Amino acid sequence: MSLKFCFIGAGNLATQLSVALQKAGYKIVQVYSRTDESAKMLAEKLNTQYTTQKSELVKDADIYFVALKDSVVNDVLSEIDFTDKLLVHCSGSMPMSVLRNFTVNYGVLYPLQTFSKNREVRFKEIPVFIEASSLQIKNQLFEIGEKISDSVSELNSEKRKSLHIAAVLACNFVNHFYALSAAYLREQEIPFEVLHPLILETAQKAVDMPPKQAQTGPAIRFDENIINDHLNTLSDNPRLKELYNSVSRSIFEFHQKKQ
Amino acid sequence: MSLKFCFIGAGNLATQLSVALQKAGYKIVQVYSRTDESAKMLAEKLNTQYTTQKSELVKDADIYFVALKDSVVNDVLSEIDFTDKLLVHCSGSMPMSVLRNFTVNYGVLYPLQTFSKNREVRFKEIPVFIEASSLQIKNQLFEIGEKISDSVSELNSEKRKSLHIAAVLACNFVNHFYALSAAYLREQEIPFEVLHPLILETAQKAVDMPPKQAQTGPAIRFDENIINDHLNTLSDNPRLKELYNSVSRSIFEFHQKKQ
Repeated sequence: MSLKFCFIGAGNLATQLSVALQKAGYKIVQVYSRTDESAKMLAEKLNTQYTTQKSELVKDADIYFVALKDSVVNDVLSEIDFTDKLLVHCSGSMPMSVLRNFTVNYGVLYPLQTFSKNREVRFKEIPVFIEASSLQIKNQLFEIGEKISDSVSELNSEKRKSLHIAAVLACNFVNHFYALSAAYLREQEIPFEVLHPLILETAQKAVDMPPKQAQTGPAIRFDENIINDHLNTLSDNPRLKELYNSVSRSIFEFHQKKQ
Repeated sequence: MSLKFCFIGAGNLATQLSVALQKAGYKIVQVYSRTDESAKMLAEKLNTQYTTQKSELVKDADIYFVALKDSVVNDVLSEIDFTDKLLVHCSGSMPMSVLRNFTVNYGVLYPLQTFSKNREVRFKEIPVFIEASSLQIKNQLFEIGEKISDSVSELNSEKRKSLHIAAVLACNFVNHFYALSAAYLREQEIPFEVLHPLILETAQKAVDMPPKQAQTGPAIRFDENIINDHLNTLSDNPRLKELYNSVSRSIFEFHQKKQ
């Protein structure tokens, strides 16, 4: 008999994780979200029930997955009686201990990826990190994790936070530089698509060799002619100019250090 | 009869471009570099001659490709008698006019990619940008460009510089954040490989949708709990902390703007 899950949260991560779990044969019996639109959209995708009322949460789910913005977790969970139900959050940044106030049985299942609601991802390739309040729960979460991913490992809250910081650098910050370059090219009336092969090759290189070794461009050799010329060109864009300057300096200094 | 090319410079770009041209049927008759090791290595790859002496440069090449660091171009070219020979540089950042001092026939062929000496790239997918001092040279460079790439277009020096700035953001800066995250994970004894799926997906997403729309993470919603917690965690790493702060701020402000 397959386990029954309730999803508290219906954002990007909740959407992709619940879909992957359902495909793996688990039953998603209910979706809760504070906003009707999100709850409904995910429930329709999963062909299941939804609610925006905490009082209407199902009582008999085997696991309650918490996939909420960190800042609202306490608010949302505070008025629900979980007692000894199994609560599992999916956040990189929150320690497992935040769940201790709500139940005696808790854990973490953290899939390391950038999720959007309508973009399918190959879940099998996503590393999943587990932490649990007991050996039994750990084993159960490993079993679930291995149904959806080929890479499941244990990681404590402190290391998970470090990993999340690294992911912010390698994903969120990286994407911001894509976005800045797209905005800059739009101003210059050059299509962003010309950067596509460069973006894909830069990422593939970082996977195939240590990224420090893959570094190219004017900053690594501190080619002041080019850097100053670029800074001058950016002078009517003070924010971008400032970032250009600080990242270039960081690149140069990083490569001066012996590692 | 196939055209004969001489390469002035034997770095990453010179290596990959000369190999692509040779594969397309052109003859690379000579490689010049200031350092014996680089000249020899590329000449062996191309099975051709090399020299480190400007006085020994062949006189009868159809095109002299200049693939040097911008800062040494004047030094290297100054004592060579090019008169009316065809000089073509391959730099994103230098205006075409730098070649005007050395010959009456000149142009630019700029392949937009990150190159390493020993990493083969699919040249056909690389956008190539052409500029030339005459219509005849432009046509000749288009013909050559189209032999090695499926995407050849004309771009003037000013726009090429803008494109190069965008490439610095989307490649060099991006790679630096990969490298910073790798260094940080090494300190935390977490293998960098766990970020590989995230890195590839982040890049693929930026190609499949506007990167601004693909942005995820704590900074876009200015989740101060997480951001401050990360900044605290990074307090023994002041440089990384400063970058974390300025890029997070930039992300937040970028998404406040109407576009």
